[in-house]
Amino acid sequence: MRKDKIPSQEAITRKPFPASKKVYVEGKLHDIKVGMREIELEDTTIHLANGEKKHEKNAPVTVYDASGPYSDPNIEIDVHKGLDRLREDWITARGDVEQLSSITSDYGKERESDSKLDELRFEYRHKPYRAKKGQNVSQMHYAKQGIITPEMEYVAIRENQRLDEIKDLGPQHPGQNFGALTPKGPVTPEFVRDEIAAGRAIIPANINHPETEPMIIGRNFLVKVNANIGNSATTSSIEEEVEKAVWATRWGADTIMDLSTGKNIHETREWVIRNSPVPVGTVPIYQALEKVNGKAEDLTWELFRDTLIEQAEQGVDYFTIHAGVRLKYVPLTARRITGIVSRGGSIMAKWCLAHHKESFLYTHFEEICEIMKAYDVAFSLGDGLRPGCLADANDAAQFGELETLGELTKIAWKHDVQTMIEGPGHVPMHMIKENMDKQLRDCFEAPFYTLGPLTTDIAPGYDHITSAIGAAQIGWYGTAMLCYVTPKEHLGLPNKEDVREGVVTYKLAAHAADLAKGQFGAQYRDNALSKARFEFRWRDQFNLSLDPERAIEYHDETLPAEGAKVAHFCSMCGPNFCSMKITQDVRDYAEKNGMVEDEALKKGLEEKSKEFREKGSEIYQ
Amino acid sequence: MRKDKIPSQEAITRKPFPASKKVYVEGKLHDIKVGMREIELEDTTIHLANGEKKHEKNAPVTVYDASGPYSDPNIEIDVHKGLDRLREDWITARGDVEQLSSITSDYGKERESDSKLDELRFEYRHKPYRAKKGQNVSQMHYAKQGIITPEMEYVAIRENQRLDEIKDLGPQHPGQNFGALTPKGPVTPEFVRDEIAAGRAIIPANINHPETEPMIIGRNFLVKVNANIGNSATTSSIEEEVEKAVWATRWGADTIMDLSTGKNIHETREWVIRNSPVPVGTVPIYQALEKVNGKAEDLTWELFRDTLIEQAEQGVDYFTIHAGVRLKYVPLTARRITGIVSRGGSIMAKWCLAHHKESFLYTHFEEICEIMKAYDVAFSLGDGLRPGCLADANDAAQFGELETLGELTKIAWKHDVQTMIEGPGHVPMHMIKENMDKQLRDCFEAPFYTLGPLTTDIAPGYDHITSAIGAAQIGWYGTAMLCYVTPKEHLGLPNKEDVREGVVTYKLAAHAADLAKGQFGAQYRDNALSKARFEFRWRDQFNLSLDPERAIEYHDETLPAEGAKVAHFCSMCGPNFCSMKITQDVRDYAEKNGMVEDEALKKGLEEKSKEFREKGSEIYQ
Repeated sequence: MRKDKIPSQEAITRKPFPASKKVYVEGKLHDIKVGMREIELEDTTIHLANGEKKHEKNAPVTVYDASGPYSDPNIEIDVHKGLDRLREDWITARGDVEQLSSITSDYGKERESDSKLDELRFEYRHKPYRAKKGQNVSQMHYAKQGIITPEMEYVAIRENQRLDEIKDLGPQHPGQNFGALTPKGPVTPEFVRDEIAAGRAIIPANINHPETEPMIIGRNFLVKVNANIGNSATTSSIEEEVEKAVWATRWGADTIMDLSTGKNIHETREWVIRNSPVPVGTVPIYQALEKVNGKAEDLTWELFRDTLIEQAEQGVDYFTIHAGVRLKYVPLTARRITGIVSRGGSIMAKWCLAHHKESFLYTHFEEICEIMKAYDVAFSLGDGLRPGCLADANDAAQFGELETLGELTKIAWKHDVQTMIEGPGHVPMHMIKENMDKQLRDCFEAPFYTLGPLTTDIAPGYDHITSAIGAAQIGWYGTAMLCYVTPKEHLGLPNKEDVREGVVTYKLAAHAADLAKGQFGAQYRDNALSKARFEFRWRDQFNLSLDPERAIEYHDETLPAEGAKVAHFCSMCGPNFCSMKITQDVRDYAEKNGMVEDEALKKGLEEKSKEFREKGSEIYQ
Repeated sequence: MRKDKIPSQEAITRKPFPASKKVYVEGKLHDIKVGMREIELEDTTIHLANGEKKHEKNAPVTVYDASGPYSDPNIEIDVHKGLDRLREDWITARGDVEQLSSITSDYGKERESDSKLDELRFEYRHKPYRAKKGQNVSQMHYAKQGIITPEMEYVAIRENQRLDEIKDLGPQHPGQNFGALTPKGPVTPEFVRDEIAAGRAIIPANINHPETEPMIIGRNFLVKVNANIGNSATTSSIEEEVEKAVWATRWGADTIMDLSTGKNIHETREWVIRNSPVPVGTVPIYQALEKVNGKAEDLTWELFRDTLIEQAEQGVDYFTIHAGVRLKYVPLTARRITGIVSRGGSIMAKWCLAHHKESFLYTHFEEICEIMKAYDVAFSLGDGLRPGCLADANDAAQFGELETLGELTKIAWKHDVQTMIEGPGHVPMHMIKENMDKQLRDCFEAPFYTLGPLTTDIAPGYDHITSAIGAAQIGWYGTAMLCYVTPKEHLGLPNKEDVREGVVTYKLAAHAADLAKGQFGAQYRDNALSKARFEFRWRDQFNLSLDPERAIEYHDETLPAEGAKVAHFCSMCGPNFCSMKITQDVRDYAEKNGMVEDEALKKGLEEKSKEFREKGSEIYQ
């Protein structure tokens, strides 16, 4: 197998989840249809006292679906041609873009003309779009003008997961949202527009990535999850990276970041973007560094600028830019236990020291904004000085940089460039809220996008968990997107199974945050799963879970027989000990005897208890 | 292989962790020695500017060790004879116990005389101890009389992990402990005594389980972890259960609960207790129910009482007693989505309804106390009405029961019986603190012992994680012990790998809580690991982690060569991109040039930056 082998059709996972089908909800303002996953449920069987059975329907449950066309068996996908260009008409219809005759970056042209790369090149490359001179094509720009774009309506529909069509959503605890503007009902396109105009949310949507299904990142929406993929100098092929991207969205990744630092970064990225149904982020400085053979001090603004254009024209939806690593903060890291652990941050720190100059990312920030708004690339302002261990958490370097990111946010917003802020890192639990509150205050509620944070340093191999603990909390406090951490963090590059473990772990952390914030209808799926669990609808319990395949696999390890999946007991307790079964008896009895209300107890129940004993209480025997 | 096969020596894991040795710290008040694990570290290599290298010693790190004699290669263990009876002399020296000529429970005698059980019986059974008439042998009783027992000094030394011997513990963030009495320095035996006398902590230490190494459960000590083991009607052997118990302590379980509900519960328990270096808890109602063939309504106080004595004489250290499931609360569960999910709770609910009587656990509570204090069995007052899903969290049934548990705590304390309180269950994050605060208030700071809580219902297969998120938080808020949840929760019985995954997950959650509470020296190990990570001491990073074997395994998946373990880069980024390496350069440079203080920046550094460029900054090339 060639190392940089191009992807084969077969390598891409398209297997649908059990009992699930793709459904589409149409727009009202725009001619759009929003894909979701509908999970069919079995009937509830009620065992009547006379020995007969009654069946009650359970409505299907619709859930958010990040996997795009891959999970729709009616759509043909050719990985060599890329996904359908869903948003292309929306983009061109706005009349503010031009299609260029060719790509404009020097590096991109160089790669294009290098015939040695033919064998691994993505062939069906489209000509790039760019804003017409003087135009700004960012979603923030439209929002500020009062325009509700198809992208905005799309995300409103998507956030609602058809919960707005359900009359009785059942019980849900009111959340604690720490002053957020959490909608009390369904999300409206108007609300989306407001939030984007205010800078509190972004829709990463490069005009050169029309394959994306729009999604929104903001404190007042569902908490999102990012999965990192990408090769390194020591491992991985293009095929693996494309499959990892598709695989990550299958498990629920809302965006992916291609953090490749190995060979053929440009070509790998093209394959990934053309086949990605979710926004793609990058850290352009990684590739820039590769262009200067790893010598940070040789980086220049001109080279970096060319890299931004190269990637913007491929369709990268957001750029991590470490413009907050200012010269004055660098020495503040010298006494840290783990110094600077962000790759981008350390590259820039090295550059600053070598030249004894302010970072070119900071000094050229407005020029970067000009590029961003010509393609609608969003900023993800990097936390180059994030703490790499608990001891370094919330220190002067980290918080100094955060204040600078706030300054830069204001500049980006002046250009109507969509902006989010990256956060740590390693932070003990009791210091997470301080970090969140400072971000909200200093960055004017621009969406926060954090890596974890990890809440202890002593569990390599389990850092998806140490960080999920922190991620769930910071999500609750107001973070809009959580960057996943896999079990391989600190140890090695994640393989496919690690990606799955990382994504699912972060989906559950994000969901825990949604529940705690009190997002509209967030508890609906939990209630449906718990009801299924209580009623021994095993298959429904599996199918409603975040990872049905694992749930089935684990169940089958102890009780593999098909019959066990309809059994009214399970391997944990065996037939006589099942509390669920006993509870069902208690409930039937209490309901039947009017004991549901407290005062019912005051009635003499001696007689009834006698009857209960005589009749036997084993309803399922 | 016979299903109930007795354990073979080979089946029990004794492999020590890498670079670790057992050390013992001697008592000052008593003739005791407390086992701990010392992890040896490599030297730090400093690369000097002139190309030479300098080595600096790193002090070994001592950590808490729950694994008992199993991890000491100098101790011979015969699983058929059980562990050394460490505490027997301490117990008899107090002069308040008598050794009985034989066991006194009817059921125990019946099993003893059943020759069919010979083939699976633990042979070296000791005659049980019991308090002399009128005596109370509980640690709480001694504490209230001002006596510092060997057990109390033992746990004080153990909690300190030799951190009290270290002059400079390095940086640690002050915690947020929500009004707890967290010691600011090392734990003293006097403090232990005070806490036990006040009921804020317990040392589960049945006089018939002298094999235990004493440990303490209380809000002002390190957060502890319990692992459940036990067979069920459908799976498992005695050998498996004994190995699971030893295996759980290897990974850090501070107590184990034997929740067997299958065959030969009595005999399995004897094997487990005799070989367990940590306290063993049970839920006696499970076995009582087995004795009446699974018919809850046939349970009687007399049968239950006999079961308590049977288990107390075997050496069970704490009993889960669901005495708070009062008749009046049962109907409050009828409208829940998942009714009653605690097995013990549902058994008692069924009994109450069938007889229309108050629970015999409640009405005979003082008689139970009499048994507890004759053997020093601690109460773990069961949360029989804990919520089985988010929707049912913090409801009237759960909180009503909690109030009753508070009442019962007072009664237990009147008898000087050590008591902790069990807690949920499934609770969304924003409702966890309310639960904790109510427990502290209504149960007068008796230690809280919680299962998770799980913070979402939708992730079966990942419920060790959904619950670790809740566990870390409730531990921070004041919970003293966390009952682990394995990935198999809701799906099947955990195997050995699940036990390991569950225990390590909970150890990291407990540690995250210790850090957030600001326990004395809690950050020391994190700092040591982070320093090792920063200095590319890979082996030290692995060895200081909670699961060194997994850390090595994951690392070796991408870079298996032995050389990679001393490499100054890793598979994630490759040699050119390593931020740790770049930071080291930055740090060396900044330190060398007096840039550590902020004002240093004000000096003209142009010249120095030139020198830096000329010399090249690749120190490791």
